Amino acid sequence: MSNSRPIGVFDSGIGGLTVVRALQTRLPHENIVYFGDTARVPYGPKSAQVVREYAAQDTDILLEHNVKLIVIACNTVSAVGLDVVQKRAKVPVVGVIFPGAEAAVRASHKKRIGVIGTVGTVNSQAYVHAIRQLDPNAQVFSQACPLFVPLAEEGWTDRKATELIAREYLFPLTLEKIDTLVLGCTHYPILRSVIDTVLQKSVTLIDSGEAAALTVEETLAEQGLRNESTLKANVQFFVSDIPHKFAEVGERFFGRKLGRVHRVAGISA
Amino acid sequence: MSNSRPIGVFDSGIGGLTVVRALQTRLPHENIVYFGDTARVPYGPKSAQVVREYAAQDTDILLEHNVKLIVIACNTVSAVGLDVVQKRAKVPVVGVIFPGAEAAVRASHKKRIGVIGTVGTVNSQAYVHAIRQLDPNAQVFSQACPLFVPLAEEGWTDRKATELIAREYLFPLTLEKIDTLVLGCTHYPILRSVIDTVLQKSVTLIDSGEAAALTVEETLAEQGLRNESTLKANVQFFVSDIPHKFAEVGERFFGRKLGRVHRVAGISA
Repeated sequence: MSNSRPIGVFDSGIGGLTVVRALQTRLPHENIVYFGDTARVPYGPKSAQVVREYAAQDTDILLEHNVKLIVIACNTVSAVGLDVVQKRAKVPVVGVIFPGAEAAVRASHKKRIGVIGTVGTVNSQAYVHAIRQLDPNAQVFSQACPLFVPLAEEGWTDRKATELIAREYLFPLTLEKIDTLVLGCTHYPILRSVIDTVLQKSVTLIDSGEAAALTVEETLAEQGLRNESTLKANVQFFVSDIPHKFAEVGERFFGRKLGRVHRVAGISA
Repeated sequence: MSNSRPIGVFDSGIGGLTVVRALQTRLPHENIVYFGDTARVPYGPKSAQVVREYAAQDTDILLEHNVKLIVIACNTVSAVGLDVVQKRAKVPVVGVIFPGAEAAVRASHKKRIGVIGTVGTVNSQAYVHAIRQLDPNAQVFSQACPLFVPLAEEGWTDRKATELIAREYLFPLTLEKIDTLVLGCTHYPILRSVIDTVLQKSVTLIDSGEAAALTVEETLAEQGLRNESTLKANVQFFVSDIPHKFAEVGERFFGRKLGRVHRVAGISA
């Protein structure tokens, strides 16, 4: 029943590397193909129709690599394009929103759950709907944190300025006495320690990428798709453009050097 | 000799509204057509070839409005695509880099000039080359300030966090004892007061948009293209997408309400 075909992961850019990192921690022997649509990042502010077109193209790029499962690391696509990918892929598809919502409902005792994300993700209310579907009594408080993405990309993880910004964003959530907070953007795990500091570790942080990795593990087991090999896994990186400081930022998100990165031709915004 | 045809201004997004504001201050009776390519912002990280294609398309959109002069408010296009616009337009074209460089050389006594901008603009060295062309003895010190764009868009102009970030970015320039600093990004005038605070007003700030407005005034006069009407000018806004908080951010950059904004069809990244 062993299956060495790779898991495919895509994102609008580089943020999804935190999801690859979570997958590798949980499933160290699974091969992975990553596609980051760095030429067209960010997806957040674009219309749902455009995002759905992009999602279909991103899916096709992964399917060319004969992937056995697709992880949508992008919160925007998970919110507005999950069905497009599912219809096209004919392999299991895991987004980040439902696993993140599920982990939050499981972790929260008081059922007072905070969600932070980009303006697009927060406005979509995707996490609110997913959490309420799982627990209609849960109270959900959302907060957009637009400066967190550039701060994470700059690597300003331990600056006083970052802490001040985090305090301002998170203050309304502390007033609501949340006990659980969903990091609803693939960039935010980079800022986990400053978020923990500001919340004085009194709030359980849910990394949607880690939650998705758990769902992937369960799905592979259920469907007999696990790779039983104990060889070192092969992780391949594809992008649609090589932006400034790509290697540096990529390493920060992935946790170690990326090695060779391939550029996919034909996508240039 | 009066000419009521509009001045055309384009930018990769919303930042160019600070240039429109500078134009309106200097030339209150000139009609203006603005195009912001909000569907494909930012241009900075994209390849020169792609930026040049976009510049040609942006130019065509303005030409449809029978503009008498084109202002390239975008630093990236001014750096890598000025010739494309000039060749296509057959009307005078004013970028932001040469006027900004010229104003800096004129203002600097010690010929120690700082330039701040996006990573793309700083890496292009366009300001360095333009300043050295005007004064080969000038010393130029550049600093990318990637967090300034999101801070300006968020309107965090008077936060302690913004001051800390500005201090960190500008510290190396103060060590070089610059006496003049070019704001080499259309977003940065929004942060002018915090930059002034950090530099303790000992450095002359050059707003490239204001410098470009002066060049526009001179060019219109030289070429007999001024509008001699004393009627209130008509300013029209066109964008390729309406992103989140567009009206709010646009108002901050323009200095007053934008009124009606038209969406240009057919451009969707």
